[in-house]
This record gives sequence, structure tokens and C-alpha cells, in this order.
Amino acid sequence: MIKCLNILIIGLLISVACLTQNNPISIPNVLDVIHSRKSVRTYTGQVVSEEQIEILLRAGMSAPSAMNRQPWFFVVVDDGDILKEFSESIMYGKMLSEASVAIVVCGNMRRVYSLLPDYWVQDCSASTQNILLAAEGIGLGAVWIGIHPQKTRTKKIRKILNLPRYIVPLSIISIGYPTGVEKPKDKWAEEKIIRNRWKD
Amino acid sequence: MIKCLNILIIGLLISVACLTQNNPISIPNVLDVIHSRKSVRTYTGQVVSEEQIEILLRAGMSAPSAMNRQPWFFVVVDDGDILKEFSESIMYGKMLSEASVAIVVCGNMRRVYSLLPDYWVQDCSASTQNILLAAEGIGLGAVWIGIHPQKTRTKKIRKILNLPRYIVPLSIISIGYPTGVEKPKDKWAEEKIIRNRWKD
Repeated sequence: MIKCLNILIIGLLISVACLTQNNPISIPNVLDVIHSRKSVRTYTGQVVSEEQIEILLRAGMSAPSAMNRQPWFFVVVDDGDILKEFSESIMYGKMLSEASVAIVVCGNMRRVYSLLPDYWVQDCSASTQNILLAAEGIGLGAVWIGIHPQKTRTKKIRKILNLPRYIVPLSIISIGYPTGVEKPKDKWAEEKIIRNRWKD
Repeated sequence: MIKCLNILIIGLLISVACLTQNNPISIPNVLDVIHSRKSVRTYTGQVVSEEQIEILLRAGMSAPSAMNRQPWFFVVVDDGDILKEFSESIMYGKMLSEASVAIVVCGNMRRVYSLLPDYWVQDCSASTQNILLAAEGIGLGAVWIGIHPQKTRTKKIRKILNLPRYIVPLSIISIGYPTGVEKPKDKWAEEKIIRNRWKD
């Protein structure tokens, strides 16, 4: 009987440990996050912590890059005045005044590979996508706002942030706690796939 | 005693169910995948299944895109002759002859937003990154091979795949089962972060 109880207790402990791994604080698997990510433009007002910001930046720096140049540079913006300036300067950027924090993903032109200077856009896009997925993974909501290659936008952001010529803003990621109104889209389209070769 | 045994059995069943979720087949959390992803250029030769290819394509189509244009198009290449042609045509593309499958991520110029035609590069880069993360998540190894905006490469790939002018190849993702020799890099660099404004 005591042996039976012992096994029962061990079984229950394992169950509790396992169930705890699936509680709301645990981080979902990568496929679920890829499919549940959505552009979140409304926020509750809750503040994103320094630990969360570091998780996002670490994800951003884990992207692949052409010739492993890692040509990214990040401006973390939590100053309310700057967020307000952003929101007033960028069409479709109104949500930035309500964001807890924004990360401006930039390319550092001093780090790009001179023979292939344009790959920084792809490197910094992969970095932006990593940050969006990390945000979704830790329960935050985020949206990618494109800056480069729109000249007027780039100029405005450069001026607000006092960026030198060699730091080029690619995107602004607006981040906060989601209100829950935004839902992911199903974008599956089989007609966008072909096998091996285009057939006329 | 019978009641005790019943509870014991239920406890053990939950334990087994939970442990199964954590076995090697389960998909790791998004942050672990972001950090364990690496460029995998050596493969065991094991064949990637149709189900796995669909998982990768679904991930690719779940990326965000400017104005939600979803301007991507995918060529799944598992024809050994084409993979060999790729490997002989692209510098640093040797691994393609050993890959089980390659996904060519393209932009469809008929879908881009005419006022902002260049954003397709960023959209397709986010799509490529989603596919790389999904591959890592399901135990495959992959590497991003840049094509656009290199004119000679683009021309070669376009010719091999018989692509029409409006389908522009951005990247080729070489995919297979990893041999395990490649390891992720720690690319954390605090000096690439500033707060709020550039200070001269």
C-alpha cells in the first residue's frame, strides 16, 4: 500500500511538472508562433520589461546574414515624446504613440560587404522577423512598419533619432501588450507553389 | 485499494502523455529555435517528406508583408538534375547537389504594390526566415543562399527554372537532414544597441 502511494505521488508530481510546462507563461513551439503571429496595432498600456526587450534584441541578433556580416544596429525607443513624434511622422504609424516600446532595426553601412552592399536589407528583414516571432512567443504584440527604401520616411526617422549617414533605418517595430482584437490570417495559397520547373 | 490503483493509472497516463510531448519528435519553443538555427550545409541523405515540405511552405506563407500583398511564389525543387545544375551554377552553392530538396523563394512582380514596389524583397526575406526556423523546428537543416539582386545569379536560376520575367528569385533554401557538424553562433553584441537617440 505504501509502495502504491509512493508511485502515485511520483506520478502526480510528474503530471504537475508537465502540466506546468504548458501553462500560459511557457513559450509556445515555433510552428504555433509562426502561425499565430499577427500585426498588433492596439495595446493595453502595460509596460514591456527590460528583460523582455533583451529577449527581443537577442532574437534579432540571431538572424542569418550574407557572408555573416551581421550588419544590423538597433535603436530601442521608450521615450514617449519620440514615440509620439514617430506616430505623427509616419502614415499608418499612429499606433506608435500607444506602444510601450519600439525597436528601430537599422543597417550599418560600415559593416556591409562592399561587393554585395544590398544584402543588408535581407539581413535586417530576417532580424525584424525574428523579433516579431520572439514578441509573439513571449505574449507581446508587435507590428512591422516599413521605412527603407521610402526616402521621406527615412529622412524623418533619421532626423528624429539623430542618426549618422551610415546607419539606415529599415523598419520600426511597434511593441506592447496586445488587447486581443487582432487575429492571425490564414494565407495558405496552393497556387503559389510549383514543382521543379515553370511549365508554360 | 482499487480506487488507489485507478488514480495511479490516471496519473501515469497523464505522465506518459506529458512526457510524449517532450520527446525528440516534439517541436521546440520559438526562442530555442531562433537561437539554435544555423546554416546547415551538410546532409545525411535522408529524404525530406511531402508533409515536411508542406510545413515549410505553410510557414513561408505566414510571413507579414507590406500592405498585406503576400507577393511570394515558391518553386519546390527535388529533381536531382536541377539541384546539380544549381550547385554548379552558384558560387558557395555546392551543398545543393547533396540537398534532399530546395525551396526557391521568389517575388511575384504582378502582386507587388505599385507605389511601393521594392518591399517585396523584405516580404520574401521574412518568408525565407520563417522557412529556415520551421526547418530547424522540425529537425531539418537548411541554409539561405542569396540570389537577388545579383544579376548573373538571377539570370542563371531564371533560365534553369524557366521562370517568366515577373517571377524574380530572391533566395534558394537548401534543405536536408543535418549531419550535426554545424553549430549555432553566439552573435550577441551590446554595442549594436542604443537607447532613444544617437549621441555624438
